[in-house]
Amino acid sequence: MKILDLARLIKGVVEGNKNINIEGLSGIDTAKSGDLTFAVGEERLKSAEKSDASCVLTDMNIRKSTKTIIRVKNPKLSFLKSYNIFNAPKKRKSFIHPRAAVSKKARLGKNVWIGSGAAIEEGVTIGDHVTIESNSVIKKNCEIGSFCRIYPNVTLYENTKLQKNVILHSGAVVGSDGFGYVKDEGKINKFPQLGRVIIEDDVEIGANTTIDRGSLSDTVIGAGTKIDNLCQIAHNVKIGKNMLMAAQCGISGSTTIGNNVTMGGQAGIVDNITIGDNVTIGAKSAVIGSIKSGTVVWGIPARPIAQTKRQMAVLSWIAKNFRSFRGHT
Amino acid sequence: MKILDLARLIKGVVEGNKNINIEGLSGIDTAKSGDLTFAVGEERLKSAEKSDASCVLTDMNIRKSTKTIIRVKNPKLSFLKSYNIFNAPKKRKSFIHPRAAVSKKARLGKNVWIGSGAAIEEGVTIGDHVTIESNSVIKKNCEIGSFCRIYPNVTLYENTKLQKNVILHSGAVVGSDGFGYVKDEGKINKFPQLGRVIIEDDVEIGANTTIDRGSLSDTVIGAGTKIDNLCQIAHNVKIGKNMLMAAQCGISGSTTIGNNVTMGGQAGIVDNITIGDNVTIGAKSAVIGSIKSGTVVWGIPARPIAQTKRQMAVLSWIAKNFRSFRGHT
Amino acid sequence: MKILDLARLIKGVVEGNKNINIEGLSGIDTAKSGDLTFAVGEERLKSAEKSDASCVLTDMNIRKSTKTIIRVKNPKLSFLKSYNIFNAPKKRKSFIHPRAAVSKKARLGKNVWIGSGAAIEEGVTIGDHVTIESNSVIKKNCEIGSFCRIYPNVTLYENTKLQKNVILHSGAVVGSDGFGYVKDEGKINKFPQLGRVIIEDDVEIGANTTIDRGSLSDTVIGAGTKIDNLCQIAHNVKIGKNMLMAAQCGISGSTTIGNNVTMGGQAGIVDNITIGDNVTIGAKSAVIGSIKSGTVVWGIPARPIAQTKRQMAVLSWIAKNFRSFRGHT
Repeated sequence: MKILDLARLIKGVVEGNKNINIEGLSGIDTAKSGDLTFAVGEERLKSAEKSDASCVLTDMNIRKSTKTIIRVKNPKLSFLKSYNIFNAPKKRKSFIHPRAAVSKKARLGKNVWIGSGAAIEEGVTIGDHVTIESNSVIKKNCEIGSFCRIYPNVTLYENTKLQKNVILHSGAVVGSDGFGYVKDEGKINKFPQLGRVIIEDDVEIGANTTIDRGSLSDTVIGAGTKIDNLCQIAHNVKIGKNMLMAAQCGISGSTTIGNNVTMGGQAGIVDNITIGDNVTIGAKSAVIGSIKSGTVVWGIPARPIAQTKRQMAVLSWIAKNFRSFRGHT
Repeated sequence: MKILDLARLIKGVVEGNKNINIEGLSGIDTAKSGDLTFAVGEERLKSAEKSDASCVLTDMNIRKSTKTIIRVKNPKLSFLKSYNIFNAPKKRKSFIHPRAAVSKKARLGKNVWIGSGAAIEEGVTIGDHVTIESNSVIKKNCEIGSFCRIYPNVTLYENTKLQKNVILHSGAVVGSDGFGYVKDEGKINKFPQLGRVIIEDDVEIGANTTIDRGSLSDTVIGAGTKIDNLCQIAHNVKIGKNMLMAAQCGISGSTTIGNNVTMGGQAGIVDNITIGDNVTIGAKSAVIGSIKSGTVVWGIPARPIAQTKRQMAVLSWIAKNFRSFRGHT
Repeated sequence: MKILDLARLIKGVVEGNKNINIEGLSGIDTAKSGDLTFAVGEERLKSAEKSDASCVLTDMNIRKSTKTIIRVKNPKLSFLKSYNIFNAPKKRKSFIHPRAAVSKKARLGKNVWIGSGAAIEEGVTIGDHVTIESNSVIKKNCEIGSFCRIYPNVTLYENTKLQKNVILHSGAVVGSDGFGYVKDEGKINKFPQLGRVIIEDDVEIGANTTIDRGSLSDTVIGAGTKIDNLCQIAHNVKIGKNMLMAAQCGISGSTTIGNNVTMGGQAGIVDNITIGDNVTIGAKSAVIGSIKSGTVVWGIPARPIAQTKRQMAVLSWIAKNFRSFRGHT
């Protein structure tokens, strides 16, 4: 594609050689001639200029470059749009690897791709254009909506339901038993885990993340939610729409999360509470009570962020200045 | 089963239609006609009443319901007992999926079920009534006791020993090398990890949890212990009986844990210390020293819980009230 | 091997029966007659004496033993050297399990071992003496250097590059998409993740650890680095040489780490910062800003360790002694 044609599609301005052909997009470290790459900020632009990329997508304010550049108002969004132009979904035929183990009692849609060693058990329903990569295991009676992509070594337990366009990264486990027990005469007995996991449209789940099935109700992940790697979602949790959960977070059982909630890495939320809409939870926080919509919290325990910051500052000041404090490290 | 027969078995009192037949148990979200479901509290009872369930198991104090209910003293335990009545272990025949890779030098008990793609290496011993699901890998010389259940995509390294009735959820890794190195002339060299992992009777291990083999002694998980998802047990750790460990906890190398210890989510324990019996460790705690039996600790670092709570309250009070504190956020 | 020959090789002094033959090394719990085991400290020595081991490697200062002992200056290093003497790499032939799925378009070196169910996709290059165990999946165009060892159920995404002698434990996921999104008109769109993961020589990666591919540059793990279980390395992170990262740590996107950095368990580092060389980060720390070379930090947020300890001590003292503090728990 001519650079001017691309620039027109993403409403950008070309500076430099306007006759370049763009053949693809790539990161700076792997860019080759013909590639469009992305750089915002002087440091990244320098790296991009040293690469073999033919053209750099950047913002309106950066200096003139030794490379041909396309300036746009929102570079990340324009790079994404460019990427989608160059990576339009390819038509493909159905493919089932001869070493996949697909039950005769599973129902498969059109253009389904199943890798070697994948196990699809009886009663599973798979929609159109679904990809299930090598060695993933889809247990009985799961439903997988169209355009879902399941990377290698994923496990879905029985009755798990994925709606459309869900991405599950490798090692994710969805539908495992929740951590529920009843003590009786000194023995710890396993409580039945009878609910399902339901994952709505456009959700992405990170590598090695675990989502437990509900015990008595379902565990639900709302549409558009993105969960990073190594997170834990306990039984009966209900997550609203468009949550962003960074890596290594945990949500304890039966907690309900509103829409548009953001959670920094390694944060945790206790069980049986309610988090409102548009809440932001800082990294490493320990949320020990319900939170109202629109609040920004941080800390262990999590409090409104200004309060946590003031406490940290006060403690820091006292440790430096408190004269009557003696005899301690 | 007639509802009155079930009620008699679990010592419950029926209110409503005493002629109902119960066909199975289910969660509220998936209940259908003929099902017994479970509800404690007004909110859950309302949900249960809206469901298709024919009958609801509940406690002695709740209001009269529009559904037929069974009242019992300990609803969770009675629901578990009902579940066990309806889900008695089925007799089954041995089954080895034609796509499992079972070594001729492995010894299998009676009624063993092995899924597609599971790899059972030489020298492995598998007891009676064991289930090993698709794509799990059991390396050389492991011993698996009777009634163990291994979900898909689990890995057991060499010489791992599971006693009876152990449940391993998907993605669990048992017997991986511990994190042990010796520095020599600026190089970090791997120290031999020669011990095993021994998991005693009735243990349940969560999805994607990792348990390292001992370096020089064995790593041991005591009978009845339940470990949630994404936990890390380092080399040489000895855990006593009936521990309850919530998700994302970690125990560092060579630490010893007594019996009946409870650990909240995301807590961590340093290496080479001793935790007594009946200790409770609050969520997100950092345990940095040995703890005596019967103590309840919380915090970073973990201290007796009253002390941690007082410190939090004092800091909070000072940050609000300390007049001589100026010039900080 | 005669005990005197071994002692000569590791510069040790034998006390006891000098005619013993050593047949192998083992941990204390599994030692059998003919084995050399390892014990430092009175307690371990007692255990070793109760074992069936024929000989114990120990330090210069310990008491006389009832067993034959070899005294050395650096027992851990000498035990490692002894281990290497008894476990010299064996010559072996190439082996590809008939149930492995190896693409005809993959290139394999000499003496490659591939287990059952492993999937090696097209364009993959595998060096000499590489082991890829059962059910691991190596996606398109990965490069795996000589002497790498990949345990069962590992996943490498496209274009991942392992240099020489890299160890990946079970469940590790390398090259998964980073957590990058662009919001547009209320929708959260996935940003292209075009970089690779490059793992340099002699790196060991723990079980169920996840390392995301770069978005626009590569994610790089420096030579000699050792990462424990359940860690998360986000996109574009660059780790220097010889890092030691304990279990359940996380490093957020685009952060750069110097050489010889040590990180205690459950610690986290925010995105887009720089950690110098020879930095030590205490367990459970939350690093929220760049750190200069040579610093030891601890705490939430992480500060120089003396400062964090003083703050903890001050708060503890005040909570006990501050008289004007009333009316709180």
